[in-house]
Amino acid sequence: MEPGGKAARFSSGWAAKALPQRLMLLLLTLLSGRGLHVVAAASSSGAAAEDSSAMEELATEKEAEESHRQDSVSLLTFILLLTLTILTIWLFKHRRVRFLHETGLAMIYGLIVGVILRYGTPATSGHDKSLSCTQEDRAFSTLLVNVSGKFFEYTLKGEISPGKINSVEQNDMLRKVTFDPEVFFNILLPPIIFHAGYSLKKRHFFRNLGSILAYAFLGTAVSCFIIGNLMYGVVKLMKMVGQLSDKFYYTDCLFFGAIISATDPVTVLAIFNELHADVDLYALLFGESVLNDAVAIVLSSSIVAYQPAGLNTHTFDAAAFFKSVGIFLGIFSGSFTMGAVTGVVTALVTKFTKLHCFPLLETALFFLMSWSTFLLAEACGFTGVVAVLFCGITQAHYTYNNLSVESRSRTKQLFEVLHFLAENFIFSYMGLALFTFQKHVFSPIFIIGAFVAIFLGRAAHIYPLSFFLNLGRRHKIGWNFQQMMMFSGLRGAMAFALAIRDTASYARQMMFTTTLLIVFFTVWIIGGGTTPMLSWLNIRVGVEEPFEEDQNEHSWQYFRIGVDPDQDPPPNNDSFQVLQGDGPDSAGGNRTKQESAWLFRLWYSFDHNYLKPILTHSGPPLTTTLPAWCGLLAHCLTSPQVYDASNLGRVKYVPRESSPEIWELRALGENQEPLREEDSDFILTEGDLTLTYGDSTVTANGSSGSHTASTSLEGGRKTKSSSEEVLEQDLGVGDQKISSRGTRLVFPLEDNA
Amino acid sequence: MEPGGKAARFSSGWAAKALPQRLMLLLLTLLSGRGLHVVAAASSSGAAAEDSSAMEELATEKEAEESHRQDSVSLLTFILLLTLTILTIWLFKHRRVRFLHETGLAMIYGLIVGVILRYGTPATSGHDKSLSCTQEDRAFSTLLVNVSGKFFEYTLKGEISPGKINSVEQNDMLRKVTFDPEVFFNILLPPIIFHAGYSLKKRHFFRNLGSILAYAFLGTAVSCFIIGNLMYGVVKLMKMVGQLSDKFYYTDCLFFGAIISATDPVTVLAIFNELHADVDLYALLFGESVLNDAVAIVLSSSIVAYQPAGLNTHTFDAAAFFKSVGIFLGIFSGSFTMGAVTGVVTALVTKFTKLHCFPLLETALFFLMSWSTFLLAEACGFTGVVAVLFCGITQAHYTYNNLSVESRSRTKQLFEVLHFLAENFIFSYMGLALFTFQKHVFSPIFIIGAFVAIFLGRAAHIYPLSFFLNLGRRHKIGWNFQQMMMFSGLRGAMAFALAIRDTASYARQMMFTTTLLIVFFTVWIIGGGTTPMLSWLNIRVGVEEPFEEDQNEHSWQYFRIGVDPDQDPPPNNDSFQVLQGDGPDSAGGNRTKQESAWLFRLWYSFDHNYLKPILTHSGPPLTTTLPAWCGLLAHCLTSPQVYDASNLGRVKYVPRESSPEIWELRALGENQEPLREEDSDFILTEGDLTLTYGDSTVTANGSSGSHTASTSLEGGRKTKSSSEEVLEQDLGVGDQKISSRGTRLVFPLEDNA
Repeated sequence: MEPGGKAARFSSGWAAKALPQRLMLLLLTLLSGRGLHVVAAASSSGAAAEDSSAMEELATEKEAEESHRQDSVSLLTFILLLTLTILTIWLFKHRRVRFLHETGLAMIYGLIVGVILRYGTPATSGHDKSLSCTQEDRAFSTLLVNVSGKFFEYTLKGEISPGKINSVEQNDMLRKVTFDPEVFFNILLPPIIFHAGYSLKKRHFFRNLGSILAYAFLGTAVSCFIIGNLMYGVVKLMKMVGQLSDKFYYTDCLFFGAIISATDPVTVLAIFNELHADVDLYALLFGESVLNDAVAIVLSSSIVAYQPAGLNTHTFDAAAFFKSVGIFLGIFSGSFTMGAVTGVVTALVTKFTKLHCFPLLETALFFLMSWSTFLLAEACGFTGVVAVLFCGITQAHYTYNNLSVESRSRTKQLFEVLHFLAENFIFSYMGLALFTFQKHVFSPIFIIGAFVAIFLGRAAHIYPLSFFLNLGRRHKIGWNFQQMMMFSGLRGAMAFALAIRDTASYARQMMFTTTLLIVFFTVWIIGGGTTPMLSWLNIRVGVEEPFEEDQNEHSWQYFRIGVDPDQDPPPNNDSFQVLQGDGPDSAGGNRTKQESAWLFRLWYSFDHNYLKPILTHSGPPLTTTLPAWCGLLAHCLTSPQVYDASNLGRVKYVPRESSPEIWELRALGENQEPLREEDSDFILTEGDLTLTYGDSTVTANGSSGSHTASTSLEGGRKTKSSSEEVLEQDLGVGDQKISSRGTRLVFPLEDNA
Repeated sequence: MEPGGKAARFSSGWAAKALPQRLMLLLLTLLSGRGLHVVAAASSSGAAAEDSSAMEELATEKEAEESHRQDSVSLLTFILLLTLTILTIWLFKHRRVRFLHETGLAMIYGLIVGVILRYGTPATSGHDKSLSCTQEDRAFSTLLVNVSGKFFEYTLKGEISPGKINSVEQNDMLRKVTFDPEVFFNILLPPIIFHAGYSLKKRHFFRNLGSILAYAFLGTAVSCFIIGNLMYGVVKLMKMVGQLSDKFYYTDCLFFGAIISATDPVTVLAIFNELHADVDLYALLFGESVLNDAVAIVLSSSIVAYQPAGLNTHTFDAAAFFKSVGIFLGIFSGSFTMGAVTGVVTALVTKFTKLHCFPLLETALFFLMSWSTFLLAEACGFTGVVAVLFCGITQAHYTYNNLSVESRSRTKQLFEVLHFLAENFIFSYMGLALFTFQKHVFSPIFIIGAFVAIFLGRAAHIYPLSFFLNLGRRHKIGWNFQQMMMFSGLRGAMAFALAIRDTASYARQMMFTTTLLIVFFTVWIIGGGTTPMLSWLNIRVGVEEPFEEDQNEHSWQYFRIGVDPDQDPPPNNDSFQVLQGDGPDSAGGNRTKQESAWLFRLWYSFDHNYLKPILTHSGPPLTTTLPAWCGLLAHCLTSPQVYDASNLGRVKYVPRESSPEIWELRALGENQEPLREEDSDFILTEGDLTLTYGDSTVTANGSSGSHTASTSLEGGRKTKSSSEEVLEQDLGVGDQKISSRGTRLVFPLEDNA
């Protein structure tokens, strides 16, 4: 702990970050195939200026072209890799192979290409043209060099440790396939994270919100501290046995705990999806992994920001600790706000314009607004990736309802493709990095310690938290669910991106290598073991969810007035109905369809009564939920479609008896039962259709003509535990007209643009 | 014409190209919002190394963050601009405003923001930390600098002219919103050009192929040389009156001719689309503009490559001229081949795998393969943009037919969004560049001369070529069509991208400014005048094309076995039928539905008999068209679906009587008339449907049950001039099953993976 140690570490960290700056240009190449052309031209313009003979110029040009070609070839390698992965994924899906997921496959192909690049290409020198120039006092960011009357501008790339000046021989190809770490964080992660938020199955997510938040926040913090402390013990041990030559502070251990606590059960969830495993377990795992990515990012940057007042000490400092906690809360809430705000703005824009007539414009706007979240958060000093996550959730919850049918599928598909490409790219790059990364530090003790630590950290996170959560939950998280959550602690793209972000110091390099191995191990072993584990733990598979929009989108289209097929269920004080009713003791009490926690109730009523009516075309009119004195405002904000539905005289919003803070839709007429909104999903099919699942039956009878037609709908559903309700609605009375494209409902409204 | 002038110009060109290299990093920022973080950190690490006190470090960090925030803000400006454009476009479309197109609008918003940035922000200095270091002999690409024992690496940025060393004061914000020219060429143009190729209305394009090729190749060459020569006259004039201070060679004039010959009638075509103007005129204009972009790129690089043997002469040199012609042919054919080859490979991959069961994989593969064309062409030294164009056309012609219904709309929509964003970005950047570009050279004589020259060039290109084409065409290009083509000579994104690519010399700067003004003028004035011009020229609008897939895709889905709804019509020697039959002399002979040119016939029979059967699931089986000795190969390559259709015993391929080189589909049984393939488009709708348009009637009757159903189809169509034909096909015989998602037909085929 010598004086100035931290400062030196810090500045060398910056310098090393600056080192891969040239690799940044590779991103351009990634995108364009031409990127390094200019660079190569630049690096040879010095030579060209010296001697202006035509021959030399041609040589320079040739050199530039050669370099450009090499870049294109190295990128083609990556594309070939991804293409190969796609074809093999298809083959695996075709043959129903489940022991290896596409991400695992991408890693294997990456490994193979890495081995070829590492051992199959000749090593060439990276520094063919260099010159030493001694300066007196300090290094500047820009250098002007006078060469026989001409001035050349140079920029600082970074510091080189003295020992390496003559050993910077690098394999050209290896350098070319190495990307700047920031590329992962700023280009590849945002689409992945946004897609996670946007594709969240909201109903189940919000139902389990309390547990998910507990797992994500408390769980990640617990896991981070346990892993950090265990690793500090391992580091002490390594120092004792003389295996550690360089510095490794306690904050480094905590940092490792933070980055390795980001779980990414992409493999497990893919199998869950395929086998239609229990939706609540899916929601718990998915929600936890999505949120704990955000927590891990903010946690790791808070730990980096933890600087004890005395520079030369790395012991505990209360002031610095609370500052770090403050930074954590600040960044997290700021990023959350940014994401939510842009989501809300997009919802308002799509609600109050008729942009849905032009799906292309709508999709472009959606894309730009979602991207602006990232920039806005970065501009304000928050974390763009976290903001993008909450933006995705907000967009899915509000904006999605305002989009046209075509835009819904367009936006989903657009982000799905981006997510798919980015994820497979990251995983194949991981495979590649194991062999092409130049600064690996393999430390067996550290690696074994890390495996033990992540196991213990996950255990200390899942079991106690589940115990406490079960105290509060009406429907417990079963023992088999806990085992499955314990098992699903895979590490993936986020851990990798956080680890590769800074590989300047010895400690960070060791962490990076270890993270890489943990990702490999968990994706391959746990990914392959999911299907046996599911059957061993007796977790139900084959659970059908007929009302999940994703599955039906393409065959049927929803017909709606102010209702949302994937919306949250209203919380009841009595037991919530079970859609797929097995026996009450079939699978260990895992039929928890809701949590009646106050948090959820509070959020639900606020969202249902105020946010949804303001931001979307659904929910009760604000004129009924808001106090009378904001009547004008409420009138302006309420969607005309909601009025229209009310004015038809068939439905009315009234407070519910059991919980008067929630306004409910009631059909007027012969049937005075409250109309449960998720039951009023109207399905318009090409003919008559009867769906039967479990003990519930939906009968829908719709017909649509070619251009303008009247529609009659009849929807009835029997549920087991809630009151019987039959809804009959006839909407085909000339007030609405169905346009011929898709089945959008167009109301003869006044212009509100 | 001093000795070495060319070399100096050349090297200074390189140096200037190197200069905006730092701006290249802005692209990263464009994509990530974090790009310049590392750069800023790099430029301050020098200062940090000097003094390792914590205070200085914090200052450094703050500086880096500040710079990063500024970048994010400047990018938010761009996104705001695009969002604003989208909302205004919506308003214009909503109100049916046609005098200003979205691209014109984007330019106006760009202009406004440019004015604000130029005059509203304070000027700051760009070089705050620089140091001079004198070297002896030559400039190297890398520099190692020894600062009190520590080594720092610097890279060459470029040459700075001595006069500018102390005057590199630039407005920081202006610099931040300036993009590297290569960004346009390598990132923004490819999606635009690919989309143009992919969305080509093939039927009309191939029908008018001869004329389109003539306009695009001969026309662009003529236009280039005429404009080049006229501008050389203008330059001579400017020299005489003393308005030109710098060098301006004949090759520069030709270069200007090449870049300004790339027409981009995006505004006109948008209005054509909206008004449903004549499809042949649309095909001629669209086809010409798409191909002449490619011609202009290759032509301009050939002109740059034109280097007379004597370095100090800029007169005509036959050897260099033929070398340039050779380069033109080489680059063009090479790029064409690259594009076609990757398209064909994609078609084969999608044909011989069952990837269509997984639309996400299919879309990702399609995207990657299309992108790899660009890289492949660049790696081989050809032009990526041109390759991408031909790849797009090939993908649309072959691969598109192999895709699943979902992937078709996915790929179309994906590239539509990319195209939309890229195009509007370029146009708003153009508006911005008028005020933020630092090196404008406004020369009134040159600008007026250029306007006259492009008018004359367009006239010399359209009228004589149309005259010669009409000699060969059975159905003439009418006088009003020629006037409209003359009028539609707008300049757009391609001219801008070519002009901004190199703005090093005085001549190039003058060209850039002039190009910018020409784009503004033509987009605003001509774009606004299209609707009046159409009615003034008596060009038919409101022509409906009920079988164009784009319009029907979302309401109906095609049901097909081996047929292609948008495929080329078989050429007949007798007059081709007119689908929308007005009187024969209604609109000046513009009902040319086909060209019977030998080129088209040759291409059609080859494509129909060999390429389509090999690459797609349509066309006659290869076993019938190929000679007997390649029987096994033909068997392997022919799609099992084609056999299946033949084996049903209802259809058979036989050579046509009138032209025996074309194999035709004939229905066996009661009706021995040849079965025209485009008539065998089956439409599956949600009910019974009768469409009537003009004198043609289509009756389709389809029903689909919930999961597996048999389908009966009945399609009949009456056309005016061709033989009456009624097709009745019953496919619901248990051999096929219709899956519930969409209306894909799944055959019980053996596995051919």
